[in-house]
Amino acid sequence: MNFLSDNAYGVLPEILSALTAAAEGTAASYGSDDLSHRLEARLTAVFETPVAAFAVISGTAANALALATLCPPHGAIFCHVEAHIAVDECAAPEFFTHGAKLVGIEGTDGKITPEGLIRALSHFLKGFVHHPQPAVLSLSQPTECGTLYKPEEIAALSAIARAHGMKVHMDGARFGNALVSLGSSAADVSWRAGVDVLSFGATKNGAMGAEAVVFFAPADASDFAYRRKKAGHLVSKMRFVSAQLVAYLADDLWLRAAQTANGLAAKLAGGFSKIAGVKVVHTVDANEVFLRLPTALAQRLRDEGAQFYDWGPPEDGLTVIRLVTSFATPPQDVERFLALARGE
Amino acid sequence: MNFLSDNAYGVLPEILSALTAAAEGTAASYGSDDLSHRLEARLTAVFETPVAAFAVISGTAANALALATLCPPHGAIFCHVEAHIAVDECAAPEFFTHGAKLVGIEGTDGKITPEGLIRALSHFLKGFVHHPQPAVLSLSQPTECGTLYKPEEIAALSAIARAHGMKVHMDGARFGNALVSLGSSAADVSWRAGVDVLSFGATKNGAMGAEAVVFFAPADASDFAYRRKKAGHLVSKMRFVSAQLVAYLADDLWLRAAQTANGLAAKLAGGFSKIAGVKVVHTVDANEVFLRLPTALAQRLRDEGAQFYDWGPPEDGLTVIRLVTSFATPPQDVERFLALARGE
Amino acid sequence: MNFLSDNAYGVLPEILSALTAAAEGTAASYGSDDLSHRLEARLTAVFETPVAAFAVISGTAANALALATLCPPHGAIFCHVEAHIAVDECAAPEFFTHGAKLVGIEGTDGKITPEGLIRALSHFLKGFVHHPQPAVLSLSQPTECGTLYKPEEIAALSAIARAHGMKVHMDGARFGNALVSLGSSAADVSWRAGVDVLSFGATKNGAMGAEAVVFFAPADASDFAYRRKKAGHLVSKMRFVSAQLVAYLADDLWLRAAQTANGLAAKLAGGFSKIAGVKVVHTVDANEVFLRLPTALAQRLRDEGAQFYDWGPPEDGLTVIRLVTSFATPPQDVERFLALARGE
Amino acid sequence: MNFLSDNAYGVLPEILSALTAAAEGTAASYGSDDLSHRLEARLTAVFETPVAAFAVISGTAANALALATLCPPHGAIFCHVEAHIAVDECAAPEFFTHGAKLVGIEGTDGKITPEGLIRALSHFLKGFVHHPQPAVLSLSQPTECGTLYKPEEIAALSAIARAHGMKVHMDGARFGNALVSLGSSAADVSWRAGVDVLSFGATKNGAMGAEAVVFFAPADASDFAYRRKKAGHLVSKMRFVSAQLVAYLADDLWLRAAQTANGLAAKLAGGFSKIAGVKVVHTVDANEVFLRLPTALAQRLRDEGAQFYDWGPPEDGLTVIRLVTSFATPPQDVERFLALARGE
Repeated sequence: MNFLSDNAYGVLPEILSALTAAAEGTAASYGSDDLSHRLEARLTAVFETPVAAFAVISGTAANALALATLCPPHGAIFCHVEAHIAVDECAAPEFFTHGAKLVGIEGTDGKITPEGLIRALSHFLKGFVHHPQPAVLSLSQPTECGTLYKPEEIAALSAIARAHGMKVHMDGARFGNALVSLGSSAADVSWRAGVDVLSFGATKNGAMGAEAVVFFAPADASDFAYRRKKAGHLVSKMRFVSAQLVAYLADDLWLRAAQTANGLAAKLAGGFSKIAGVKVVHTVDANEVFLRLPTALAQRLRDEGAQFYDWGPPEDGLTVIRLVTSFATPPQDVERFLALARGE
Repeated sequence: MNFLSDNAYGVLPEILSALTAAAEGTAASYGSDDLSHRLEARLTAVFETPVAAFAVISGTAANALALATLCPPHGAIFCHVEAHIAVDECAAPEFFTHGAKLVGIEGTDGKITPEGLIRALSHFLKGFVHHPQPAVLSLSQPTECGTLYKPEEIAALSAIARAHGMKVHMDGARFGNALVSLGSSAADVSWRAGVDVLSFGATKNGAMGAEAVVFFAPADASDFAYRRKKAGHLVSKMRFVSAQLVAYLADDLWLRAAQTANGLAAKLAGGFSKIAGVKVVHTVDANEVFLRLPTALAQRLRDEGAQFYDWGPPEDGLTVIRLVTSFATPPQDVERFLALARGE
Repeated sequence: MNFLSDNAYGVLPEILSALTAAAEGTAASYGSDDLSHRLEARLTAVFETPVAAFAVISGTAANALALATLCPPHGAIFCHVEAHIAVDECAAPEFFTHGAKLVGIEGTDGKITPEGLIRALSHFLKGFVHHPQPAVLSLSQPTECGTLYKPEEIAALSAIARAHGMKVHMDGARFGNALVSLGSSAADVSWRAGVDVLSFGATKNGAMGAEAVVFFAPADASDFAYRRKKAGHLVSKMRFVSAQLVAYLADDLWLRAAQTANGLAAKLAGGFSKIAGVKVVHTVDANEVFLRLPTALAQRLRDEGAQFYDWGPPEDGLTVIRLVTSFATPPQDVERFLALARGE
Repeated sequence: MNFLSDNAYGVLPEILSALTAAAEGTAASYGSDDLSHRLEARLTAVFETPVAAFAVISGTAANALALATLCPPHGAIFCHVEAHIAVDECAAPEFFTHGAKLVGIEGTDGKITPEGLIRALSHFLKGFVHHPQPAVLSLSQPTECGTLYKPEEIAALSAIARAHGMKVHMDGARFGNALVSLGSSAADVSWRAGVDVLSFGATKNGAMGAEAVVFFAPADASDFAYRRKKAGHLVSKMRFVSAQLVAYLADDLWLRAAQTANGLAAKLAGGFSKIAGVKVVHTVDANEVFLRLPTALAQRLRDEGAQFYDWGPPEDGLTVIRLVTSFATPPQDVERFLALARGE
């Protein structure tokens, strides 16, 4: 019963097969191979617009390289105060951008509101050299709370960003999970809603280690290839990263995998909502479930072999925990976990 | 007939199997898994001394992170003028170190001599704030010319470095190829000869994408883990990188693969040394062969389907080319290439 | 009637004379001159402990260089959410540290409380590579609100910092103003209360352009000289910076200048506290006065020729303004400003 | 008899007066004052074209900020192998640019030749991500050897740079000395010859601490103001830096000062050229004289109280020394030095 993270699980069989196939023969190195070329075409199809896409091997690399490409050293990046880029990447964006400022914005359920963004922007005077200059708005989709921005919410925030001369980045480490939940097209959730660059995650949803940075205005990406190389993120046998992504995108594999994960999360949420004394903290929009439950219950579940993270210290006998489901979480683990929680 | 690079070839079957095995079940993420722990133990055994070892996914990452760990922003890194870190990493070391100076030292066959090192050091006054301060000597083993430093040569250079308060880094992107050629132990070529940190490459010799940074004085590595994370090089499913390295080190797989590659290079060198008008430019110590041959011959070989890089522009009807063999280069390709060169 | 900033005023006559005197003859460059040596001795006397001191020409340089010396790239710097280093230096600390994280702590009157610091620290797990590691606590003395930390308050915060393995930095851009107000010794407000490094400002209090970075444990400063040079802050004719600081410290000139400025601020505060409809927002501990007053009154004062900054946008017909007095603010300007405010 | 450096001397009286005058009353801070505005106008007049000009307080700051403005992190900066930016600034350009590569080009008398530049460029393939991309050519005028580029030589090098998509920077730490020697207009030596940005030095030629970065295409300077602030080089009382530069440019003060310095250097060169056993090493184009003379003679001159730097270690009983004259070097020191050398 591992609900620690979706990245605790392995690799989709289709992706393993793709890697095995890619290991045959020889190929051009450093991303000049056929699979890497095919990846860009595939993403162009998925997003219904010509994109410039670059494979990397970690979400932190995807985010930090994307942000550094759009934000000068004297720029400011606005994000939710609990965004992954703000709290869980050891300040990678500050390093890659050469010292840009991350500005955390409060907001319930992990979401930034237009009012919150406007208020935050009011502290940064345009052209005033003492202030970092607003450069990028970064949205997490899903958020750190497992909630989602609707396309029109993204559009509203993007419009504000654009009015302030900013670009919009989306951290889509679990983009597939967001998409199947919203029932929108990939385009609607990204560039049609004003997103300029997307960190398109695959690792958490069944790849071995593969993410893509997708620029919807290819001109924005003019120096990305150099940044990727200079940061040590251009791997020599790039075909093995691209192969994962190409297989991931084929035959809706990614959407099916995300559907599986989301379905299990919904089952968890549904089950727990009926258990007295347990509260589902945030709407379960994707594959993460946050519960406030008696600390004793959390302990009992752990004693029974379940793994999950506490989300903050216990308070008044209650603890908030996070459960993450994945493409490969055994459905019976979900059943058993619920049964244990019900005291069965 | 692909002699472009060893990284044009795929993956050793044992490594593919290891990846498939690692994809089962769940595992702790970000390097807290069993395979990652085993890797350090395995390298400790290989090097006969307790090491601190960190897996990364590219040679540039290994080099730049290792150098940044040992060299402060105001430091200078001394290396051969043609070293990979100096010319082929888009100045990654300068980025990771926050602006350290790379000092290129001339030397025949890609090798630094004690005299060359001492001369270079004479331009950097200790304690003089206008000069970057000597911090690291970086040696490539094998060199960019496919030649090798003998353990006693490394020791002599290390002694000079140490006398100047410097640490010693070894870029071992093809460390296995060096080792089997020298017939020395891994320890003799590294820490016993004064090396403090080694970029231990596996990708070129049959891994999918895996290198290890090996510190022989674990205290030197105190902040490496943070640097790796901050640079986006701590992948979530680290077990798949570690799995490659563990398999690579098992049952001398890496040494056998390197032996294969070196043997093919020796065959090429031996064959070409008997062809009139062709000159083997550098001693063939590992798996790279540099030839000066008539430009027309090079063209003819290409026309027949052979792939290789020119190493500089043609001059007086002659061109220098580089041939690299690998663990998976078909022996018949070597035979056919030689036959074509002989005009058969 | 210029209350915009103390740096709107010129230079103390004693400092001008010192510059003129220093212009005679020749001197060693880059800080090897007699005046620069004397500066360190003078600061050692002022602080009653051997210090390592370095002259620079701006407060931002002093802060950013001091912080970068104590904080690694993967470190976190804790400061008040409105600290100058956090909001008014265009993210210079992030640049100089190579990407460290600034963590803003809320607190009334510009001051950090022990509770606030402890709460902020709770989000940064020691040894957890995803989190920047707590490295430096930075206190502004006086704060951005013109208030002061008492020595025992500094000591309490320093103790927490030390218990978490952090160093303590003090931004003393107006350190003289703080000192004369507290009536403490320079030592009591700094190292005896746990401060490791002080940005000792002189420019705002009558120098032309001179600040000193003062390390109370000289070993901490081991690479400062290189950082200063590498950042372009080692000026060739350093004697002219040192001359300012030496003159500033001679015969209590700095304390007298600060006394003047503080006295005028007290007069403003006293005067305004008696005017109906005007509220003194923060305790006036040094030379800054924050008033909440009718927007119409602020406008009228400006129409009469007074200069000062709004501190935030008007709200409900009221505006917060900041008044800064200096060593050279004409007393009659204070009188006249008060008279105008009283409607006389 | 101080010939160590022109920065060993003090300040031109006109500049001291200007500082005293600027100390009166109040002024806007951070460069919004009248003198700072006047500076840009004055430089526009001197260069006969609208410029964007920024005052800073050190030559290293001027160079590193100018270079970082024109060179991306993945760029390469080409300069003479002995250029100040390459050897005497503790790798400041690498720090400010976030890791750009400095490429040293050999060349006699401190000068780069078109052939040398073209050869160096041949190692950097355009669009090849492994290579830093050629971004800036930096020329020192005068060179580190005290020699000069003629306008047509600058134009020839600039044309090559431009053909490779590069910008041209000129390190004019002693630009005045160059100008009076060439007898050209400031425009002819700079933008008309293809220079995009000039580090316009004043400190060595009689200012207290003031340099200007002059962009001839103001659009190039779009983010300079932020870079200056972020690096701590925007001083609060900027009027005192601008005042120096405005006075320096008034009434040809700078040209007269440079004329004085150059005249004394010419006198030294002329005198030494007649002394047997002493060789003037480089053409004396400005205010630096390099002599190869018997080590014993150098020692004797020092014993008599003369100060100067050795330029390399003694060889075969001979030593190369550097003599620098300044706007304030006493003519009698030159006479006496020559007399001593002649054994009088």
